[in-house]
Amino acid sequence: MAPNLTPYNQIPEITFLMSLPLTVVKIGGNIIDNPEASGAFLHAFAKLPAPKILVHGGGKIATQTAAKLQIETQMVDGRRITDRAMLDVVTMVYGGLVNKNLVAQLQANQCNAIGLTGADGGIIRSIKRPIKDIDYGFVGDIVEVNAVQMKSLLRNSLIPVIAPLTYNSEGLLLNTNADTMASAIAVALATDYTVNLVYCFEKKGVLSNPNDDDSVIPTLTRVTYAEHKASGVIYQGMIPKLDNAFKALESGVGRVTICHANDLLAMKEGQTGTILRLN
Amino acid sequence: MAPNLTPYNQIPEITFLMSLPLTVVKIGGNIIDNPEASGAFLHAFAKLPAPKILVHGGGKIATQTAAKLQIETQMVDGRRITDRAMLDVVTMVYGGLVNKNLVAQLQANQCNAIGLTGADGGIIRSIKRPIKDIDYGFVGDIVEVNAVQMKSLLRNSLIPVIAPLTYNSEGLLLNTNADTMASAIAVALATDYTVNLVYCFEKKGVLSNPNDDDSVIPTLTRVTYAEHKASGVIYQGMIPKLDNAFKALESGVGRVTICHANDLLAMKEGQTGTILRLN
Repeated sequence: MAPNLTPYNQIPEITFLMSLPLTVVKIGGNIIDNPEASGAFLHAFAKLPAPKILVHGGGKIATQTAAKLQIETQMVDGRRITDRAMLDVVTMVYGGLVNKNLVAQLQANQCNAIGLTGADGGIIRSIKRPIKDIDYGFVGDIVEVNAVQMKSLLRNSLIPVIAPLTYNSEGLLLNTNADTMASAIAVALATDYTVNLVYCFEKKGVLSNPNDDDSVIPTLTRVTYAEHKASGVIYQGMIPKLDNAFKALESGVGRVTICHANDLLAMKEGQTGTILRLN
Repeated sequence: MAPNLTPYNQIPEITFLMSLPLTVVKIGGNIIDNPEASGAFLHAFAKLPAPKILVHGGGKIATQTAAKLQIETQMVDGRRITDRAMLDVVTMVYGGLVNKNLVAQLQANQCNAIGLTGADGGIIRSIKRPIKDIDYGFVGDIVEVNAVQMKSLLRNSLIPVIAPLTYNSEGLLLNTNADTMASAIAVALATDYTVNLVYCFEKKGVLSNPNDDDSVIPTLTRVTYAEHKASGVIYQGMIPKLDNAFKALESGVGRVTICHANDLLAMKEGQTGTILRLN
């Protein structure tokens, strides 16, 4: 590397405040399940400037594959219970089928994708969730994101495509929530990058009326989020997603947006979706 | 990097002849199918000095999973015919279940493994095998190994663990023979490294008597290989493996050994297995 020849006292303060932008995109399972929607999304993702990271959910293919293999899917409070047989299914479907097809399609879009689980390069380590009221089985709670390894991949112009699986120090793979993984990755890299975290799914944003797809709430703060929760406007699956999103924002992530997968490039200009604000 | 201060005319010739050693290990499906054998092998592989690369076969889990999913496995001349449904199964099993479990177990052995298919980082591109007498379906014939990308991963202290899948420029994954992949990788990196290519499987080497596990042929040249083929001593599945192995040796790979998975570390000292020689 050529040394920076600008004398220390002549470097404007802005140099210290600016860091390289990084986009972390989470794409939901409902988009992945639909080849047309998924294809359009990947085309847009490929156009986003690098560095960038894609985190993908699982979708219904794991449940369908489990059913074909006559493995029963157990759900408690909207969460999958991962027994040993189901761990093998999600490893096959998320880590193999979904992840590798996303990578191959991105490569065809001139995007140098590399498909990873948390185990690959030791990027995201977790512990098996302790049993309290419910035994979730082989589910991981993240303990560490290896930011050094992630940065090294990004610096080598690779585009990580991350499946919702982590690993523990005993060499066990663990099923892990993709929203949480995207948030943890964004936070771990916020020291080195100005991170733009985008949750893409099949709705235009957080809706004030679930029956009206155009009722997007343009901005949310902790205060308005609490109000919408109290009034029942925001409920169910959206709550853990927003909890993760606010946690990221409060931990140094530059911007958090929730938007439709079709609006990924428009979101870049701040024209669409729900933007979370600190206040 | 610090400049090399030795004047050009004082660098001994040996400097130009030596390059960093690299071990490329192919592990067969029969070892992977057996958790005990696989665990012992991974423990040994983790002890090998880096840089190193592991290429793994598929094993019977793909066939078993296909059967459970009521997909019929078609074989012609000992080769699997990969229709669309079978391509999904091998992507799940090789790219997901097998690959990610190998990676997680290597991580537990303090080996910084990263699981890849040919599509990841665009490391191995292929074309769908042209239809002649037989339509093999979604099977890839390798056209390019991206040595620059592979070297960049190795220089970053990562240990690639490669599943027998490649991709074409249209974003299609393709089922690919693991022996051929190991050979192609070894050849592509032979310009920069002194490559030691090791085919590990469930036998002690190439046997002169298939009923006597101790009848290992210690060395093979093209001449003795042709003799053993003519006399029927070497036959069936061993032939494409040895064809790949000789091709690698003739294309600049430093050493090619065929040995038992248990003998990986002993092989390092040249004490075991079948060693291929140019003459």
